Amino acid sequence: MMIEDLVRNTRSTRRFFEDHTIPMETLRSLVELARLSASAANRQPLKYILANDKERNTIIFPKLAWAAYLKDWAGPERGERPSAYIIVLGDKEISGSFGCDHGIASQNIVLGATHMGLGGCMVASIDRKGLREELQIPDRYEILHVIALGKPKEQVVIETVGPDGDIKYWRDESGVHHVPKRPLDEIIID
Amino acid sequence: MMIEDLVRNTRSTRRFFEDHTIPMETLRSLVELARLSASAANRQPLKYILANDKERNTIIFPKLAWAAYLKDWAGPERGERPSAYIIVLGDKEISGSFGCDHGIASQNIVLGATHMGLGGCMVASIDRKGLREELQIPDRYEILHVIALGKPKEQVVIETVGPDGDIKYWRDESGVHHVPKRPLDEIIID
Repeated sequence: MMIEDLVRNTRSTRRFFEDHTIPMETLRSLVELARLSASAANRQPLKYILANDKERNTIIFPKLAWAAYLKDWAGPERGERPSAYIIVLGDKEISGSFGCDHGIASQNIVLGATHMGLGGCMVASIDRKGLREELQIPDRYEILHVIALGKPKEQVVIETVGPDGDIKYWRDESGVHHVPKRPLDEIIID
Repeated sequence: MMIEDLVRNTRSTRRFFEDHTIPMETLRSLVELARLSASAANRQPLKYILANDKERNTIIFPKLAWAAYLKDWAGPERGERPSAYIIVLGDKEISGSFGCDHGIASQNIVLGATHMGLGGCMVASIDRKGLREELQIPDRYEILHVIALGKPKEQVVIETVGPDGDIKYWRDESGVHHVPKRPLDEIIID
């Protein structure tokens, strides 16, 4: 099943070939996938800021917190940082609440990225005040999350949560990132 | 681009061939796509209740509100109702907040449904109290939304929002459902 492969390969990636430039046209085609998403009451309150240049990337990167469970790793080093970002905003002049619209839209974006050989990570742990100030984002927009994008430079594998129930992802000696997922029979209830 | 076609064809569908049974194994394979989703801090607080039988469907259907903008239409008639449902729950024993996890997971589910020739609609306007009582859903689970599923019996087309800014979907004389989406240049801001 093709979609299962795409979903399976769409993993949160946090290290990239930073030199790999992502053209603005590519980012726009990813937002096009978000544009076509379902939206609660079709209100479509989401707006997007795109970044793919050194100047903006340098502003955005330090505003994001990376991989809280990897205590010894502060985030991707120079050369392994995302080469583009899509900042997902909620336009409060359109709606007072955004439900899970940004999840729906962003999943389309990251699936599209995987399809193009890119990878990404939705980051919700953000210095929102700092990001707003430096990019001069008007108060009308709530910063929902940031999708970091790039050409992946790490391998991410899915595993099954063990009997101890630990869901923390971890990285092995060879740099492979392991993500334990709850088994199907645990998440389907009767 | 294959993913764009899939996204474009994944429309909120509200009338179905109700006789078309969806096997439990199909619903499980859709939840498998949700299982493989990204989840905030990988906490995976989402749980799922599946329904594909007459008894459960008859309980769930009247708890859902359909297509608020179609004032003359109370929802699908007998024979055109969903043949299955996936109730998406947030397990409060795992997390106090669910962010947009249910958007991410549910988008995988509806994309998977489209891929299988099915269609669906995420419904968030729910008589939650009634649904909880009749299905005896424990308080530990927050009812996030319900994905109605079936073999689509209607055509849904995407259009561009006009100069009046009206985003209300509408149905024409031949029963085609029209959904105005904001243009790309309106949702990308600088």
